[in-house]
Amino acid sequence: MTPPTQERAQRTREALLWAAAEEFDAHGYAGAGITRILKRAGVTAGALYFHFGSKQGLADAVVAAQARTIVPRIGSDGLQRLVDITLVWAWQLQSDPLLRAGVRLAVEQGGQGGQDPSSFHSWKVLMEECLHAADRRGELREGVDPERVATFVVGACTGVQLYGQLRNGRKDLAEQVVHMWQLLLPGVAAPGKLARFDLDVRRGMGG
Amino acid sequence: MTPPTQERAQRTREALLWAAAEEFDAHGYAGAGITRILKRAGVTAGALYFHFGSKQGLADAVVAAQARTIVPRIGSDGLQRLVDITLVWAWQLQSDPLLRAGVRLAVEQGGQGGQDPSSFHSWKVLMEECLHAADRRGELREGVDPERVATFVVGACTGVQLYGQLRNGRKDLAEQVVHMWQLLLPGVAAPGKLARFDLDVRRGMGG
Repeated sequence: MTPPTQERAQRTREALLWAAAEEFDAHGYAGAGITRILKRAGVTAGALYFHFGSKQGLADAVVAAQARTIVPRIGSDGLQRLVDITLVWAWQLQSDPLLRAGVRLAVEQGGQGGQDPSSFHSWKVLMEECLHAADRRGELREGVDPERVATFVVGACTGVQLYGQLRNGRKDLAEQVVHMWQLLLPGVAAPGKLARFDLDVRRGMGG
Repeated sequence: MTPPTQERAQRTREALLWAAAEEFDAHGYAGAGITRILKRAGVTAGALYFHFGSKQGLADAVVAAQARTIVPRIGSDGLQRLVDITLVWAWQLQSDPLLRAGVRLAVEQGGQGGQDPSSFHSWKVLMEECLHAADRRGELREGVDPERVATFVVGACTGVQLYGQLRNGRKDLAEQVVHMWQLLLPGVAAPGKLARFDLDVRRGMGG
């Protein structure tokens, strides 16, 4: 047996990741079937264990891959970048299997009294970077702590989409996120900079 | 067979409610065992079906009973009352089985793509009442909509406790809620009234 070329290995890995995301989104972690993932991806069990080690490894990789679907769409900086990340997320959550699986795996974990915050951590790090950049740009209100704001925004977005899922299948999630920023910006942004931020819901569309 | 006296029926109902809350908190909806609930409550299956109709009826009653454990502790009004409700909730969530079961049932539902928002609805109504009172007292910032703020706060609290559960078993949840209000109040409260609100974390203790 010849080793796979790097390109083919990459394609196999991607196929597994997307197939797993669709399966976790539809059935949750416990309900996801390895056999169905393999069939959907068109690969062998050997490939799954080669690339991800286990079902848990596959779930971890799905969670870690979320930010990848968001970040390349965004050209803004600082606080506007943070706003844009949450808006793109809100729109993409309607359709992107990686994001949908990521949020389902994270919420399941929390609901079951889990103890592993890694599913939230990559979001928090991403948001913290935006807030540190905002701080350097003088965009933050005095006394605002980037790490604490990032922690709050990750939690708030998680809960807003969860409640939105139950209220109306998340169909107004992007508007809810705009409203979150209308409420939050006066407490987060420096008063003199408030007017410069654009909360148009369409900022998160397309891409 | 003589019908139970009203007082005895009430005691039986309460015993079932608390036993169910402890069971739902520990095992979630799917994992909760009717037999264990009956044993814990010391009542018969007939009593359960007489009072609640079904396991789902019991879960609905647990969810509906949450606010009852919070409201009697609070003497404040308007926006301060809303802050106090969230602080009492944050402290009580450490130990009160009704609240713990309520939040677990709500999060499970959202995580599983459920469509029934009733587990969040009683909180939203309670918060909306505070915000309407705040509006009548001139405490709200211009343009702030009580219904939309209540919707956001219910979602945000849900997500903050979920992330807090994974980060550190919710041990700093009350501080996280205080921080939420530090960020939110400038966007919610009328500028001239901001200084009057007390965000001392101890407001939610004891009772």
